[in-house]
Amino acid sequence: MARMAGVSAPTVSKVLNGRAGVAPQTRQRVEEVLREHGYRRPDAVGPAAMLEVVFYALENQIAIEIMRGVERVASEHELAVGFSEMRGREAPGRSWLEQVLARRPAGIIAVFAESTPEQYAKLAASAIPVVALDPTGEPLHTTPSVGATNWSGGVAATRHLLELGHSRIATITGPLDYLCARARLDGYRAAMDAANAPIGAGMVRTGRFDVTTGLVEGRALLGLRTPPTAIVCGNDLQALGVYEAARQAGLRIPRDLSVVGFDDLEYARWCGPTLTTVRQPFEDMGATAARVVLGLAAGDVPANPRVELATSLIVRESTDVPRP
Amino acid sequence: MARMAGVSAPTVSKVLNGRAGVAPQTRQRVEEVLREHGYRRPDAVGPAAMLEVVFYALENQIAIEIMRGVERVASEHELAVGFSEMRGREAPGRSWLEQVLARRPAGIIAVFAESTPEQYAKLAASAIPVVALDPTGEPLHTTPSVGATNWSGGVAATRHLLELGHSRIATITGPLDYLCARARLDGYRAAMDAANAPIGAGMVRTGRFDVTTGLVEGRALLGLRTPPTAIVCGNDLQALGVYEAARQAGLRIPRDLSVVGFDDLEYARWCGPTLTTVRQPFEDMGATAARVVLGLAAGDVPANPRVELATSLIVRESTDVPRP
Repeated sequence: MARMAGVSAPTVSKVLNGRAGVAPQTRQRVEEVLREHGYRRPDAVGPAAMLEVVFYALENQIAIEIMRGVERVASEHELAVGFSEMRGREAPGRSWLEQVLARRPAGIIAVFAESTPEQYAKLAASAIPVVALDPTGEPLHTTPSVGATNWSGGVAATRHLLELGHSRIATITGPLDYLCARARLDGYRAAMDAANAPIGAGMVRTGRFDVTTGLVEGRALLGLRTPPTAIVCGNDLQALGVYEAARQAGLRIPRDLSVVGFDDLEYARWCGPTLTTVRQPFEDMGATAARVVLGLAAGDVPANPRVELATSLIVRESTDVPRP
Repeated sequence: MARMAGVSAPTVSKVLNGRAGVAPQTRQRVEEVLREHGYRRPDAVGPAAMLEVVFYALENQIAIEIMRGVERVASEHELAVGFSEMRGREAPGRSWLEQVLARRPAGIIAVFAESTPEQYAKLAASAIPVVALDPTGEPLHTTPSVGATNWSGGVAATRHLLELGHSRIATITGPLDYLCARARLDGYRAAMDAANAPIGAGMVRTGRFDVTTGLVEGRALLGLRTPPTAIVCGNDLQALGVYEAARQAGLRIPRDLSVVGFDDLEYARWCGPTLTTVRQPFEDMGATAARVVLGLAAGDVPANPRVELATSLIVRESTDVPRP
């Protein structure tokens, strides 16, 4: 090193230790040699460790709740939390995912709203521990994952309506290539079967997890010859669409129609009437994912590659006994 | 360097360049000397640089839109984006803010929802460039800041109602120690004055930026002897509270009452009826803050210490001509 810079070893030592007694030009020459060889002072380099949370398109509010949970655990370990959103974009130069990987975070939490096997393969190929947080329930068997009990949530939502006295209960589901949508639908069917409540023709509708699907399928359901008295929605956005369909049909919720959502977005507490829904504990799911990925980073083998946190029914104003 | 490690300079060079032909023990000794002097290969150190976004309690959806904007600019510079939320908590060991500062991010974007002069003083005392992103409009004159044109937004909301033919227009404001609340109120007053529309007694109400304030003050306004035909709300949450107050009073929006919000949360497009509101460009505000802080980090002196991005009126279903 000293020879490469053309200076004495004590001089290199002075530069390394930031001590005085070195001419500026000499200091600069030594620093250049160090730089050429890829060395920098760590304190000029930045954070040593962080957890990176990668979102693959997701509801705004869900994203921030997950971030909160991850941050709670990360800050206990004095780690930063990085936020990235994968939106199919290709940045100029290095791809976005390559940027994330190049940062070498202590761990990555990949929040999948859609199955993206190619992107996932890239993550898996890196040596960085990865945990999948999949509110949509898409299991990636090759990696540990955290989710919620969707099937039980579907049962709880439907059973609540049955207990209120409803029997003509319809459901709107999300896309059936999402396992969470299937699980919620199966929960609905299981509760109806267990109560010997037949599922009428046209009472199961499928669409996307959005307001428009709730509006379109809600209209279709309310237009049936014998319309449902209650609807179990695939998520809260669909429930808001059903609210609008009811409004357009001149029906009042819950007097003329009971509605149950899924997720418990903040809006569920604000909308009129407030929405009965199945709550997913997004913040706790984020915290759990952070703990699992930190465990992987520490070399632990997770006892269970799949953790599902409990959903819970939150009863508000949008459900009531059916009108006689 | 070579002398310190007791090896030849070519050997140090081989180690530095990761080439073969060095005994493992020798390589280790050279690496130890480098480590002792604080040098590590950057790629073993982790992220080279990041922007840290610090939230001081803020609406979920606003937070994620700001993060998106920051990330868009950060990724162009191959920087990570850190997420932190300040919630008055004291972590065991180092305080949370000290953790953030210890990471030495390239810059910090402090999103203030409340004025927190002590916390801000700590940030300012660090050598890290800071930009304040203040959707509430609290100006921190000692640091560059990014906001939105609140006064113009108040004018636009009120003028829209005047143009529809309303004259009994009330307003609900946020806390008047938030400059944004004052600016929106002043905009309302300016538009009323300019139209020679008198502001009736009790037509200006003040509260918090939440749904409950909208409900409570909405009820009070609708209970006046001559109630307003239109209400300019301080934000979208208040507007949702007014929706509920109208519902409880048996009034329909917009037939019996026109309502305008402020912010343009996603929910404004989902609620029934959809909400006319003043849009704040949160994502662009985040991107702008990122550009300003990167400029500071590069040694630039910002041409203008305060940047205000334009708000825009989004007309939806909640406003209509007054019922004759």
